[in-house]
Parts: sequence; C-alpha cells; structure tokens
Amino acid sequence: AFREKFLDMHPYDQALFFEEQQTTIRQRVYTYLSPEEMADMMEHIELEDIKPFMTEMDPRYAAMVIGDMATDDAVDILNELEKDVVVSFLTMMEKKDADEIKQLLHYEEKTAGSIMTTEFVAVYQTKTVKDTMQYLKAEAPEAETIYYLYVIDEDKHLVGVVSLRDLIVADGDIRIADLMNENVFSVSVGKDQEEVAQMMRDYDFLALPVVDFQHHLLGIITFDDILDVMDEEASDDYSKLAGVADTDRPQDGSFAAAKKRLPWLVILSFLGLLTASLISRFEKTLDEVAVLAIFIPLIAGMGGNTGTQALAVAVRGLATGNFNKEGKLKLILREGVTGLITGTICGIVITAVVYLWQGDFFLGLLVGLSIMTTLIVATLAGALVPVFMDRLNIDPAVASGPFITTINDIISILIYFGLATAFMQFLV
Amino acid sequence: AFREKFLDMHPYDQALFFEEQQTTIRQRVYTYLSPEEMADMMEHIELEDIKPFMTEMDPRYAAMVIGDMATDDAVDILNELEKDVVVSFLTMMEKKDADEIKQLLHYEEKTAGSIMTTEFVAVYQTKTVKDTMQYLKAEAPEAETIYYLYVIDEDKHLVGVVSLRDLIVADGDIRIADLMNENVFSVSVGKDQEEVAQMMRDYDFLALPVVDFQHHLLGIITFDDILDVMDEEASDDYSKLAGVADTDRPQDGSFAAAKKRLPWLVILSFLGLLTASLISRFEKTLDEVAVLAIFIPLIAGMGGNTGTQALAVAVRGLATGNFNKEGKLKLILREGVTGLITGTICGIVITAVVYLWQGDFFLGLLVGLSIMTTLIVATLAGALVPVFMDRLNIDPAVASGPFITTINDIISILIYFGLATAFMQFLV
Ligand SMILES: [Mg+2]
Ligand SMILES: [Mg+2]
Ligand SMILES: [Mg+2]
Ligand SMILES: [Mg+2]
Ligand SMILES: [Mg+2]
Ligand SMILES: [Mg+2]
Ligand SMILES: [Mg+2]
Ligand SMILES: [Mg+2]
Ligand SMILES: [Mg+2]
Ligand SMILES: [Mg+2]
Ligand SMILES: [Mg+2]
Ligand SMILES: [Mg+2]
Ligand SMILES: [Mg+2]
Repeated sequence: AFREKFLDMHPYDQALFFEEQQTTIRQRVYTYLSPEEMADMMEHIELEDIKPFMTEMDPRYAAMVIGDMATDDAVDILNELEKDVVVSFLTMMEKKDADEIKQLLHYEEKTAGSIMTTEFVAVYQTKTVKDTMQYLKAEAPEAETIYYLYVIDEDKHLVGVVSLRDLIVADGDIRIADLMNENVFSVSVGKDQEEVAQMMRDYDFLALPVVDFQHHLLGIITFDDILDVMDEEASDDYSKLAGVADTDRPQDGSFAAAKKRLPWLVILSFLGLLTASLISRFEKTLDEVAVLAIFIPLIAGMGGNTGTQALAVAVRGLATGNFNKEGKLKLILREGVTGLITGTICGIVITAVVYLWQGDFFLGLLVGLSIMTTLIVATLAGALVPVFMDRLNIDPAVASGPFITTINDIISILIYFGLATAFMQFLV
Repeated sequence: AFREKFLDMHPYDQALFFEEQQTTIRQRVYTYLSPEEMADMMEHIELEDIKPFMTEMDPRYAAMVIGDMATDDAVDILNELEKDVVVSFLTMMEKKDADEIKQLLHYEEKTAGSIMTTEFVAVYQTKTVKDTMQYLKAEAPEAETIYYLYVIDEDKHLVGVVSLRDLIVADGDIRIADLMNENVFSVSVGKDQEEVAQMMRDYDFLALPVVDFQHHLLGIITFDDILDVMDEEASDDYSKLAGVADTDRPQDGSFAAAKKRLPWLVILSFLGLLTASLISRFEKTLDEVAVLAIFIPLIAGMGGNTGTQALAVAVRGLATGNFNKEGKLKLILREGVTGLITGTICGIVITAVVYLWQGDFFLGLLVGLSIMTTLIVATLAGALVPVFMDRLNIDPAVASGPFITTINDIISILIYFGLATAFMQFLV
C-alpha cells in the first residue's frame, strides 16, 4: 500500500516527502522502489542535499538509479559526489549509459553542454511517417521528449526537425524529408546557458538541439531545465546587485553566511576608510564650517541611490542582450540627460529646504549644487561602469550595487567638499 | 518571392524584421499576408510597440488578425488599445472569438486568468483512444498545444489528463477513462502568476489547466508564457532592489526615465534631510571632536551595504516561497548572528586601522564599536523589514534597496553619534 500511495504522487512531491524522512524510512523506500522509479524521484531532489542519499544506498542500486536517469540529471548528481565514488558508480553501470555520462561530464558549467541531455529522438530523412511513428512508440518510454523529432543524415549531422504535431496529421506514406522543417535552430555546445534561455524564450521552443562544430547532433535542451536556468540567472543578477554571493541561501547557517559576505564587507570597509581619508584632507574646511558635516549622508546617499538606479537599468538592458554599439552610446547619453533632469529638480528642492531650515542661502546653494552635480556624475557612472565592463567581456552584473554605491560615495564627497572649499568665502 | 522568403522565417524573426520597416513596407506586408499569417507574427511583436501597427491596418483586417491569434495574446494586445478601438474590433470579429476574448478581458493582471489561453484540447472520458486521435488531428491546427489532452465530464469539470505520449503508445480500443491520470494538477483562475511559474518549474509541466471554483476547465497556461512570466517577475524584483520602476526600459527617453525615478529620489532627499537634522542635534559633539565627521560615510555606507545583503537573501527566500512561520523566525535569528559575526570582525579591523592611522585608540574603538553595532542592527533590519511586510501581505520586494539603505543610514548615524556623545570624555 505504501508503494502504491508513494508512486501515486508526482515525483516532485515524492522528493519533498522523501527529503523529510529519517534514515530508516529512506532505507525502506530504497527497497520498495525499482531503480527506475527511484531515478524519477531523484531527478527532483535538491542538488545541495543529494550527497548523503546517494552514498547511503547500496552502491550497485545507486549505480542503476543513476544509469536510469536522464543523463543531464545524472551528470548534475555525479558532480556533487567524490571522484572515487563517481568512478565506482560508472564502472558498475551499463557501458552505454556510462559512456554517455562520461562525455557529458566534460562540458563546462553553465554552457549548453552542461544542461543538455542525450535522450532525444533522432530519425533519418529517408523514413516514412508510418515507420517513424512505429519507431517513436518504441522510443517513447526512454526519450526526454517525443514532441520534437530531430532529423539526421548518415553522418549524424542535424538536417531538420519534425514536430509530433506535424507527424500525426501527415499521411503515413510521406517521407520525413518532405515533411521536415529544414530551417532547424540549434545551439553549439559551448554556448552560455543564459543565451540559450533567451533564445528559447524568444522562439517559444519546447526543446533545442545542441550540435558540435561539425553540426553533429549531440543532445537536446528541454524547457523544464530552461525554467531552472532562468531562475538561477535571475538569482545571480539579483544577488550581485545586493553584493551577496548567490550561494547565500536562507537555509544555511550564520557562519556560512558570514563567510560569504565578509570578503565584500571588508573590501567595502577599506573603501569607506579611503572616503574618510579623503574627507580628512578637507579638515580645514570642516573646522571652519562645521555644519557641512551634517549633509554628508544626504549627498553620499543620493549618489549611491541614483547610481544604483542607472546601474540596474543598464545591467538589465545588457542582460536581455539587444544592444548594439550605438545602443550603448545612446544609453550613456540618456543617463547623462536623466541625471541632469533629476539633479536639477532635486537640487532646487534641496536648495530651498536647506535655505529655509538653516537661514543661509549660500549653504543651501552649496548643498543643492552638490546634489545636482552628484546626481549627474553618479547617474552617468552607474551606466558607464557596466557598459565598460561589458566591453571588457566581464559580466556587467559584477559591477554590483555596493561597489557602485561606494564609488559614488567617493565622487559625491569630492564634489561636495571641493565646492565648499572653492566657495568658502561665502560660507564663513 | 518576398512572401515566401518572409514566411520561411520564424515568426519571431519576422517580427524583428517587421518592427524595423517604414510604413510603406509595412503596408505591403499587410497586403501580402493572410490574417492568420499576420497573427502568428503579431504574437511576437513587443507589446509596447504594437499600438501603431494595429491602428494603421484596415480595421476589418486587424479584427481578423486578432481573431486568429491565441486568445491570451489577443487579450494582451487589446489591453494596449483605446477602449473604442477594442469595441469596434470585437464587433467585427466572429462571435465565438469575440465571446472568448471578452471573458478573458475581465481577469486581473498577473493572475492565472490573465496568462491562460482557451485553445486547449478537451476530451470526454468515454471516448476511445482511436476516436481521440481522430479528434486530435482535426483540432491540431487550432490548438495551442496538443501534447496534453484534458479530460472533462459532461458538465465540463476537469477530471483527468492524458499526454500525447501515453496516447500514441496505447491500444486504440482503450477508453480515455482507463488511460488518463486522475491526479491532474490545476490552478484556480485568480492565482498569482508567480506562483503558477513556481509550480510549473517544480513539476516540469508543459502546460497547466486553469479552473474556476467549481473546477470547470477554463483554459491552459503554456510553458512559453511562463518563460516570459519568469523574466517579468525577475525584472520586477531586480528593479525594486535598485529603487527603479520596472517599466524603466533602456530604450525609453530621458524625460520618461526621470519622471519614473524622481518620486523615489525626492522621497529619499527628504529622508536624507531628516538624517541631516538628526546629525545637527549632535552639533556640540561635532564641534568638539571635528574628526568624527570624516567617518560618517564609512559607517552609513556599511549599514546600507549589510542591510541590502540581508534584504536580498530574505526577499529571495520569501519569493521562492518555501518558508513557514518557524522558517521566518529562524531567518531573523540567523541574520542577527550573521550580523554579530561580520560586525565583530569588521569592527576589530576598523578599530585597528583607525588607531594606527589617527593614533587615537579611543577614536578607533568608537568607530569600530559603531561599525559593529551598525552591522548587527542593519543586518537584522534587512531581514525584519521584508518578513514584516510579507506578514502584512505586502510584496516584500517593495522594501527596496534605497529604502532599507536610508533607514540604515539613520540607524547608523544615531548609533555613531550616540556612542560618541556618551563617551565624549575619552575623545577630547
Ligand atoms: Mg527532468
Ligand atoms: Mg548540468
Ligand atoms: Mg551566465
Ligand atoms: Mg516567448
Ligand atoms: Mg532535463
Ligand atoms: Mg547573468
Ligand atoms: Mg549609502
Ligand atoms: Mg504564443
Ligand atoms: Mg495577458
Ligand atoms: Mg507578483
Ligand atoms: Mg523543474
Ligand atoms: Mg500563449
Ligand atoms: Mg515578485
């Protein structure tokens, strides 16, 4: 009864249930489920948690489970295990499975090769629709998707694609060559996963074939893995904007979190000390006009805020990837003008408020002018830095929030105290 | 020849090409393409750009184009047009299409109802596999997907699902009732699109049926629209963290951008002025120990940075949605301890550096202690604010970066000058 009830659940729900159980219950699950059933569930276990499960099973059973998985998931799991465990699993597996997995283990992380699977359906263009349907019925239980069939020539070059939709409405005697779409889209095995995701989003593909440089069909990437890629890439950008490692997960402990955040915080401490040493050069100005100090957080804060705004728009624009050289120039120009507009308005508002509050028009003007200049320069910097990094082929998202904020702290302080020192005669 | 070449392209590429053309070329495209061919392309045009295209066509042609689209895309386009244009298009359309679209126009933005389409394949459980295959061939050209067939009873209640994969391997005489999976997942029509996306990501569904409160089948949501939802939700969170409207697109002009960013910047200006007025209360302290001023950006900056880090982890954790009450408490506790660790380490480093630099141990201790306290409180605040907002059923992502940064500016200034005033005797 347990077995039936368990298998009645969706594999994702099975995985949720399984992860909550004690060792003894888990051991019972291993005896109840066939390697194939276990494989279906294991594909849905969080990768971070999988190691203890794979090592507490009987090794021969574990090897069969991995052999029965989709190869992309098998490789992800093996990447979490110790090298000697991987080798022992691979030797216990069927040779065909082991060979496919060994191939995939070589592809670099976050490339098309690292997210593709080898359970695709390939057909020859000389076959008829009827034969192909027969073949498809035999392949269906093993294939990752049977909704796109990839057409290959004798040398395994990708030459076309047929959807099951076209196949079932076609006459049985038609040959695949006459039915297939020859304009088949594909990606090369080293392509960045983020670009693959953008392509699947734009073209609405359920799956996308992966080829090598000679255009041999190597594997397919399916939409479900692309949903995970989009989540992963979004988390990555979001984390970078906040200056936190994308591996900083809420369920981890404080020491793990502190370890991941400290490098940034220490670097930022030193940049903050640099800012302090800059201000200390204006000590004479500060001594004579002590009231200047009270506007430091306002000016530095506004520089940080406006810089982060411009940064976010630029990074997001560069990430969605439809920007040519002219587009980047336009973006920088646009941010400059935007800074001019927001700077002028905020500058006027602040001049007025500070004048009314402190009763000193020149002080108001100084703070207002500083805000205006800071907003222009900081907004520009927020756009320039990511565009420049993109130019150097560095992921622009690395120009994270805290970094641009601190740079802008420094810029704004220099502007503020520079102006104050230059026009001191009006202030004292 | 133009027509053939154009139709040889994927509709997404057609749309890219079309958007670049002058009016005269576009007019020629309208005469070359059938409404159905036009509909396929129009589904891929950026929604922000679509209004001029829909209004420059012959209205009867435009109405046919919209009628031939998938209803979800038709509704998205109509939502971009003036009300009287929408009404005139609907009256010129086939009644069946118009009725379906009118239904969909009522659903709230960002709910399951607003992203579902009505071109699903529904079958009765009493049918045989053979009959169903016949029916499917007839429906295939119109349906959004034929890979999942939804099984309904006489009253249109959703009772099961059959995949085309199961259908083609099944014996022709089997009845659908015996083949279908009765544990069919569905979402109700008012469900938030973000939760729908999470569900499709977790369960790897190609499509998900949408039902009303009586469990009648209303429509389906397909993976391609979910890819767009994930992009949209990620942009939304990212923009909020940066304090910029998610409609602030790189291709818009400076005035549009300035208009969208100014509200935030003005609010932040006033919060900055509030910080200034807080510091001005410590004018006496500042007058006596002028050197205090130079560490203001360091302390405020570190508070902002650490707060944003904690915020990002909390918002991301709340967004992925596997957090119970206990989990939230644990998160807050964890952030407190993380703040304690990072605060202690940064505090010690800064005490040492300031002591060596300024040759004043008490000043070093003051700055170091302030950093430590700021890091603890700011890290806690970064977690507390989003959890609290989530509690009040406000999207925690609204607690954006600039907001938490400015709050933390204020907190850190109070800590710093509070400590300085209390221990002034050691400083002068
Ligand atoms: Mg899978
Ligand atoms: Mg992988
Ligand atoms: Mg990447
Ligand atoms: Mg799309
Ligand atoms: Mg997969
Ligand atoms: Mg990225
Ligand atoms: Mg700041
Ligand atoms: Mg579509
Ligand atoms: Mg919609
Ligand atoms: Mg939402
Ligand atoms: Mg998934
Ligand atoms: Mg759709
Ligand atoms: Mg959200």
